[in-house]
Amino acid sequence: MFFKMTDVAQPSSPDLARVKQTVQESYDAFKGRGLRLDLTRGKPSSAQLDLSAELLSLPGLADYVAEGATDCRNYGGLQGLAEARRLFSGIMGAEPEQVVVANNSSLGLMHDTAVYSLLKGTCDSAAPWSKQGEIAVLCPVPGYDRHFTICKEYGIRMIQVALKEDGPDMDQVERLLAQDASIKAMWCVPKYSNPTGTVYSDAVIERLAAMKTAAPDFRLYWDNAYAVHHLTSENIEIANVIELCVRHGHPNRPFVFASTSKITLPGAGLAMFAASKDNVKWLLARLTPRTIGPDKINQLRHVRFLKNEAGILQLMGKHRALIAPKFQKVLDIFDEKLADVPNVTWTRPKGGYFISLDVPKGCAQRVVALAKEAGIELTPAGATHPYGKDPDDRTIRIAPTFPELAEVTQAAEGVALCVLLATAEKFPAHWSVRSSSSPT
Amino acid sequence: MFFKMTDVAQPSSPDLARVKQTVQESYDAFKGRGLRLDLTRGKPSSAQLDLSAELLSLPGLADYVAEGATDCRNYGGLQGLAEARRLFSGIMGAEPEQVVVANNSSLGLMHDTAVYSLLKGTCDSAAPWSKQGEIAVLCPVPGYDRHFTICKEYGIRMIQVALKEDGPDMDQVERLLAQDASIKAMWCVPKYSNPTGTVYSDAVIERLAAMKTAAPDFRLYWDNAYAVHHLTSENIEIANVIELCVRHGHPNRPFVFASTSKITLPGAGLAMFAASKDNVKWLLARLTPRTIGPDKINQLRHVRFLKNEAGILQLMGKHRALIAPKFQKVLDIFDEKLADVPNVTWTRPKGGYFISLDVPKGCAQRVVALAKEAGIELTPAGATHPYGKDPDDRTIRIAPTFPELAEVTQAAEGVALCVLLATAEKFPAHWSVRSSSSPT
Repeated sequence: MFFKMTDVAQPSSPDLARVKQTVQESYDAFKGRGLRLDLTRGKPSSAQLDLSAELLSLPGLADYVAEGATDCRNYGGLQGLAEARRLFSGIMGAEPEQVVVANNSSLGLMHDTAVYSLLKGTCDSAAPWSKQGEIAVLCPVPGYDRHFTICKEYGIRMIQVALKEDGPDMDQVERLLAQDASIKAMWCVPKYSNPTGTVYSDAVIERLAAMKTAAPDFRLYWDNAYAVHHLTSENIEIANVIELCVRHGHPNRPFVFASTSKITLPGAGLAMFAASKDNVKWLLARLTPRTIGPDKINQLRHVRFLKNEAGILQLMGKHRALIAPKFQKVLDIFDEKLADVPNVTWTRPKGGYFISLDVPKGCAQRVVALAKEAGIELTPAGATHPYGKDPDDRTIRIAPTFPELAEVTQAAEGVALCVLLATAEKFPAHWSVRSSSSPT
Repeated sequence: MFFKMTDVAQPSSPDLARVKQTVQESYDAFKGRGLRLDLTRGKPSSAQLDLSAELLSLPGLADYVAEGATDCRNYGGLQGLAEARRLFSGIMGAEPEQVVVANNSSLGLMHDTAVYSLLKGTCDSAAPWSKQGEIAVLCPVPGYDRHFTICKEYGIRMIQVALKEDGPDMDQVERLLAQDASIKAMWCVPKYSNPTGTVYSDAVIERLAAMKTAAPDFRLYWDNAYAVHHLTSENIEIANVIELCVRHGHPNRPFVFASTSKITLPGAGLAMFAASKDNVKWLLARLTPRTIGPDKINQLRHVRFLKNEAGILQLMGKHRALIAPKFQKVLDIFDEKLADVPNVTWTRPKGGYFISLDVPKGCAQRVVALAKEAGIELTPAGATHPYGKDPDDRTIRIAPTFPELAEVTQAAEGVALCVLLATAEKFPAHWSVRSSSSPT
């Protein structure tokens, strides 16, 4: 069914026209199937959610007392249940007393810590960020669109830095931070990064911990969203940013975030924050005017269900069994259909929720538009970059977890076809440089 | 056991000394019992929480699909489930599409709408509140300490206005708002107000809806925390502020808040916001960078448990049966022990969670300190006023719901004793003006 760029070598004009027409016909045929496929968001599938079905009837009629005779039904407990903080302590890389367990959104915690920093300043700020003139945040790209949206909402300037194989371009990061005191924070998804799957190397994390920053109240927004979200048996571990920052004399630098959104239930999970004791004290002081406490019943429910870190890892093994084949299917199809297309590359993540597909410059928006026409929803091109603008119009985020495997297969084939068609439209010359077989 | 002021008429000096000594001895005896009683916060008792025990195993293993085929386990649904918005529509006095159902804290919603107004402005603001110079908020007193804490946290000036029998002193409110564009909001607990139990009259609510405000982006923070929290069979209803504001041409004026904290479980309930469609659109736009959505499973759980507004009212009847006797006991004891003490008065709320006790000027802190010494925790004197400062040092908030009835009885007797002792210490002359019987 599929046409490959490699199929035509130096075709004459009629050949080229025929090749393009074949791709177009394949695309039209795909479109004609009237599929409705969605690869937009990193959402667990229904089968994944079934893994946590027990949560729907926990903690049970008579189970509401937590440690310290805490009645989880009533008010209070701003920092979260002691047993919940212990449960996530290992994942957060911090002592339980350095952990805050909140409601269902780690994005909310990131947003709120940014808002508190804007209105009140961090515990190291001479003044609120909003009173320090224009401030900026470093954004490794490609990155997570919702991080960028927070900055956009509050007029925080976003400075792009390149994300390399082993993490952000540290030469660039160090140079910028050493000289520019207006840069107050940096977004980091240090493990199985969204969308590239990048894992920060120990050396990069050590440099992030050790580097000089012109701003004394600089913060690493360490969104460890995929801490235990392995796709292979490698179970990659990264360096502990909290410990390294202590060792290098910057104990208050990292704000570590995580959640159970992709461990248990995205709509009804728990979000966690971990940091130095001064940062935790600061956050609790900021939370005090906002709320009397988080939903402790949901915390108890999670403690009962997950039990301990081993329980979490066991559950994550079941997730992997469900989603790793979907990632593999996308990679197999891309390998088959796109391997020889010039300037088309994609990542092979060992964890997380995304594959990042790079198409030839200037083609990403067209691919997304073609896919949409053919019934495949993709994240808007540009979403992986600040202000929604990918200057090269290259990067497309593929989220294969939500649809069933058969749909993932169809969608990946459709996307490959859109890449071929967009490339053919944009760079007809490319079609003339490859092997000798005819299109089929 | 108790001594009454009315017991001594024009005593000679030896009499007066004897009277004071009797009160002191009663107080010392009370203190000697080593009780630990807590009347600080408006918390439901354990028996009240038992009324919602079913929530602890709902929605159940296989129940997670809400209207519109919404999988409550997954991401999304920023405004809250359609059936949850319908469930609370009547209580909020707004159409379901004007209601936002959020996580477990209405205080969080109040805080966040204030923060968004500060950083972004309301939908009627020419600039963010934080860019409009010093801003102020009207605070009817006595009022709710956590409202004042939000203002204090963000440096919002608090202007006191008197709370009268039928609501805020509207002459004062209208005069201030007409002339001062820096006043951006007003805290209102319109029904069974915290701590006085005041119910705003229809006339007051109409004036709040109709009044001119110098600030075009003025907001009523309408904390209808006790909408269905009746203590008598009167089931008082107040005027619909949203409708009245529409009628008077100020549709965006009210932000209405409520929660199920004192309907189901304070630690694990739902918070609601209702307002004009423009305000809702504004709030959802502000929430978008913060979170992908609220805990929909908890919303479904509440829908399954409460079913409909009749279900809520039925449940509230059970709460009333548990707590009305506690209020009555406090009132009975105050009636018995304090009826004739000059300048001591208290409210007789028909709903809500508090009795407000006014003691002679300059005595409230002393009463709270005496109570603490005797093992009774009271809300700090002054908490009912902005900045924690009651200029008259008069008002004490009594929260009788949490302790068991026997403890409420002990605590009320102890408080009465502390009032007598503080008054005796401060105003010995008072002890000479009343009836003729001897102290017993």
